[in-house]
Amino acid sequence: MPSAFDRFAALATDSAPGQEVRQSTGDVGALMRGEPMAGPLVDFSHGDVDAFTPAPGALEAFSQAVEAGGRQAYTEYRGAADIRAALAERLAVFTGAPVSPDAGTIVTPGTQGALFLALGALVAPGDKVAIVQPDYFANRKIVQFLGGVPVPVPMDYLGTSTEAGLELDRLRDVFAAGAKVFLFSNPNNPTGVVYSAREIRAIADLAGQFDVTVVADQLYSRLLYDGETYTHLRACGLADERVVTIMGPSKTESLSGYRLGIAFGAPSIIDRMEKLQAIVSLRAAGYNQAVLRTWFCEPEGWMANRIRLHQAVRDDMLQLFRAGGLPTRTPKAGSYLFPTLPDLAVSLSDFVRLLRHQAQVIVTPGTEFGPHDHSIRLNFSQGHASAVAAARRIVAMAQLYRR
Amino acid sequence: MPSAFDRFAALATDSAPGQEVRQSTGDVGALMRGEPMAGPLVDFSHGDVDAFTPAPGALEAFSQAVEAGGRQAYTEYRGAADIRAALAERLAVFTGAPVSPDAGTIVTPGTQGALFLALGALVAPGDKVAIVQPDYFANRKIVQFLGGVPVPVPMDYLGTSTEAGLELDRLRDVFAAGAKVFLFSNPNNPTGVVYSAREIRAIADLAGQFDVTVVADQLYSRLLYDGETYTHLRACGLADERVVTIMGPSKTESLSGYRLGIAFGAPSIIDRMEKLQAIVSLRAAGYNQAVLRTWFCEPEGWMANRIRLHQAVRDDMLQLFRAGGLPTRTPKAGSYLFPTLPDLAVSLSDFVRLLRHQAQVIVTPGTEFGPHDHSIRLNFSQGHASAVAAARRIVAMAQLYRR
Repeated sequence: MPSAFDRFAALATDSAPGQEVRQSTGDVGALMRGEPMAGPLVDFSHGDVDAFTPAPGALEAFSQAVEAGGRQAYTEYRGAADIRAALAERLAVFTGAPVSPDAGTIVTPGTQGALFLALGALVAPGDKVAIVQPDYFANRKIVQFLGGVPVPVPMDYLGTSTEAGLELDRLRDVFAAGAKVFLFSNPNNPTGVVYSAREIRAIADLAGQFDVTVVADQLYSRLLYDGETYTHLRACGLADERVVTIMGPSKTESLSGYRLGIAFGAPSIIDRMEKLQAIVSLRAAGYNQAVLRTWFCEPEGWMANRIRLHQAVRDDMLQLFRAGGLPTRTPKAGSYLFPTLPDLAVSLSDFVRLLRHQAQVIVTPGTEFGPHDHSIRLNFSQGHASAVAAARRIVAMAQLYRR
Repeated sequence: MPSAFDRFAALATDSAPGQEVRQSTGDVGALMRGEPMAGPLVDFSHGDVDAFTPAPGALEAFSQAVEAGGRQAYTEYRGAADIRAALAERLAVFTGAPVSPDAGTIVTPGTQGALFLALGALVAPGDKVAIVQPDYFANRKIVQFLGGVPVPVPMDYLGTSTEAGLELDRLRDVFAAGAKVFLFSNPNNPTGVVYSAREIRAIADLAGQFDVTVVADQLYSRLLYDGETYTHLRACGLADERVVTIMGPSKTESLSGYRLGIAFGAPSIIDRMEKLQAIVSLRAAGYNQAVLRTWFCEPEGWMANRIRLHQAVRDDMLQLFRAGGLPTRTPKAGSYLFPTLPDLAVSLSDFVRLLRHQAQVIVTPGTEFGPHDHSIRLNFSQGHASAVAAARRIVAMAQLYRR
């Protein structure tokens, strides 16, 4: 029987985005080549909410909730009924399939909270869970903490096709071998790839055929670039009881400081998520929940402008990385880039530390997302000029430390 | 092997405080005796933050954090370093033992979050965990969700001694039989009992002797009534690595809508709690964390006045319950009462539903806290007059439904 301590070996967070301050610098100075590269620190581990500021109205909605007092401080564990009702309507329109406000929605502390609760509701010790590779680093860790067994299904993170390149035959094999849960992010984190309509329908068909429940993390699905199309799994004919969709306003809308997420779909799973939330954190902070009143209600043109600005940063960085010998897939949504590094004379973790200490750039190592020791992930939701300048430094560093 | 579904049987929340809105009224009308009792609804399932309003300065601190932007939105998972540093100083003074701001503190989404993370860091499947009976209902449920085995240690919830009346011989037996974790709330929830200095020292001695880690939930330890003394376990000589203390501003300070808690003590446990927080909710909402800047910094006299007002409600309700044939221990801290009902002609769950539908009173059934089917729990942090009027209705209802 594993002791409580063993399970935490899989949960290392020192390289997780935002935790860099807890890393020791170690002997990184001894490895250094060349001179320090000047420039203001750019932290690509998460979006810069000072560059892309929070969607308007959030603090006002929060203050009104404080004013409302007790009824907003102590909501149902699944969140205030009136807020869920308004959201259910907007999410039904956005995803193209009905959402039950009472039975089929739960407000959570961020999408991280929703992911943990959904997997906690679905995964028992020993259960196999199909996980895309690469995908959001916490997916694997949550499954492991719950005693489940993550089974990787590769996705073509270097591909150039219009499809994501998920290995559907492999997915079928994993389902056939007994996985009862499939978890994936769409757009994919870390690549920004969007699954094609054909791929999403194939996932729905396979899940139906093998009685698999799918958790679709659609956190970044609103930030969709010019000319791209997005297919919502929950509108593809899979039984309602087989899909939970997760979204939240932390990224595109820059509301991360409020820690809000929502899961919607299968009532029996939402029920169990609420029971689990009762012992994990009771509820998303009551006053914060009110900020969701502003979500999907941004001023005319606000979202289009935000997308346009991100697309401009994306295009400049892609060009720089590719010209500099760092192949990178084109993100079709969201604000992540996942460039591939050349063979380096230092380890990936040392290179990431060198980037921070020599070049004032914080990135997340690819190993957080799977066995990707030649990749780094960047959240390019940053000021345009500083992001581009930092990308130049990354390219220069890759040249400097090339084997 | 249990399926994911089985584990949720133990996590029923329909009778949990605040979830009454999800209960069906069932056939309660058929059981009703007498006429409806008029009066405004009083919800004793939690404190009324409209009657006892939030400690001053919270919204201002929150707004300043929003203004500060990114650095407050994206803190370390364990919480902003400067906020932890300030808290560590105040908590060291309050508890009488040093607190390490960097290694020994973590900010969590409420004390509920801290409890889940602490147990998640300490309990592996099959582990025995000593739990006081009665005690906070989530304690048992968290242990069960983690696959641990709660082992009850009775406390004299009807007692009249100056001690809590924890069965220390039983505690020793449970430790000797292999429990490696002991979790208890002090003041006790649901009774408001405070453990004596002798009892706390005995707990520390036994934990040291049997190498047990103690999680001390001290959520209500600031609301201490006239003439009472409080002993902090962490200042009783137990090794630092053996104690985690949990507190938060949700109750006495009425800041529940911000969902903030803190755990402090054993660095190795705090480390694991942070790793777990990374996959459970990332961090306590960044802006909300700033509200902790106001904690333990209330205006002169604010806390004394809050205690005085609660003591007045407590005394009137105690008198009413005792005169009405509902024996009740005197709470020495906090705002819970745990009266014992006479033998009733209806079940406890029906009586609780009748209280709600016939007498406009919401209480929590004693069965949430252990095998206490003749008890109800009330949070008397309510407006004085309406609390007293509701207590009269409870006494009248107990007479009406007496067997």
